[in-house]
Amino acid sequence: MALTNESAEPSPGLDRRTALLAAAIEEIARRGTRGLRVEEVAKRARVSPALIYHHFGDRATLLQSALEHIGNQADVYTARSGASARDNLVAMLLAELQDDPVVKANSAAWGELRDSAIFDEALRPTLTQLTQQWCDDIAALIQAGHHDGSIPSTADPRALGVQLSALVEGISSRWLTGQLTTRQARRHLNAMIEGVLR
Amino acid sequence: MALTNESAEPSPGLDRRTALLAAAIEEIARRGTRGLRVEEVAKRARVSPALIYHHFGDRATLLQSALEHIGNQADVYTARSGASARDNLVAMLLAELQDDPVVKANSAAWGELRDSAIFDEALRPTLTQLTQQWCDDIAALIQAGHHDGSIPSTADPRALGVQLSALVEGISSRWLTGQLTTRQARRHLNAMIEGVLR
Repeated sequence: MALTNESAEPSPGLDRRTALLAAAIEEIARRGTRGLRVEEVAKRARVSPALIYHHFGDRATLLQSALEHIGNQADVYTARSGASARDNLVAMLLAELQDDPVVKANSAAWGELRDSAIFDEALRPTLTQLTQQWCDDIAALIQAGHHDGSIPSTADPRALGVQLSALVEGISSRWLTGQLTTRQARRHLNAMIEGVLR
Repeated sequence: MALTNESAEPSPGLDRRTALLAAAIEEIARRGTRGLRVEEVAKRARVSPALIYHHFGDRATLLQSALEHIGNQADVYTARSGASARDNLVAMLLAELQDDPVVKANSAAWGELRDSAIFDEALRPTLTQLTQQWCDDIAALIQAGHHDGSIPSTADPRALGVQLSALVEGISSRWLTGQLTTRQARRHLNAMIEGVLR
């Protein structure tokens, strides 16, 4: 670590933290949460394990922070400005299924962290909050679609928020296990969205 | 092991194998596949680890056999004889979400094994085959619904086989992580099925 150079960068602590989280997400995507070793994350990020403990305190906080980071990143790559609220909704949901190594690693790590929450109750509040945010984002787009006329008023925003996000998770898992190609996964997701928004 | 008594039972090898698989599934549901230790499965089933190796050869075969056993059990508890093919389809899908410890353990273990297949390619052929069977069962019920008039002919059997099974998996995961109650999970699943079968 070049401590003397750190002050020259805009926000070195933040950049380093982001790099450490990216390394943690890649490790989780490759080995799962239970197989996650702080030493391996450190090795991948080319830092000392002590630095990771310095930034995240403990392994549990590292897992939670990784979950939050995935949520924040998804906000970025799923943001779209289409012609209608419906277009935005479809684009936002389909953005979860794309041939991009970051999206794929995030999706695999998200699935791992989510399923770890079945046993690891400490992960549940963060998982629940992020999932709720995702459901709310979908619900907001459906409401916007009621207003701009692109989504029928019979479509229930809150219920579809839960249902469509759960569907994305189910289809992602088929995609990540190689049972569906990216193209097939996107086609299936799109067909279901069209089916329920008639 | 009471070897002298074994010959009195109808199929002791099969019964013991089933008991060992049930113990493996409970362990996977509690600790995940990566945390699975043959010693813990043996302890839960009250047998020696050697007996497990005798029945399954190695850990990888034990995981595959557990996956197959979950598939076979699901065939039993999802079998229904409703008034129409549509009723049977809805009942079969909803049967995956019920307050039954065996169903819950199977669902959690299935999710674990499925997500392990992202990294563990040896599990993929069995996973793919069982998932395909599930999709085919759904498709067959939709075709039966075309014939008995309970499902509109516009509903695509193969596509909906993939889509509805993926939806069940997505909703199951919300349910197992405590984000949805059994009642909520069933209501959401039912609403989506009705939505796409209009």
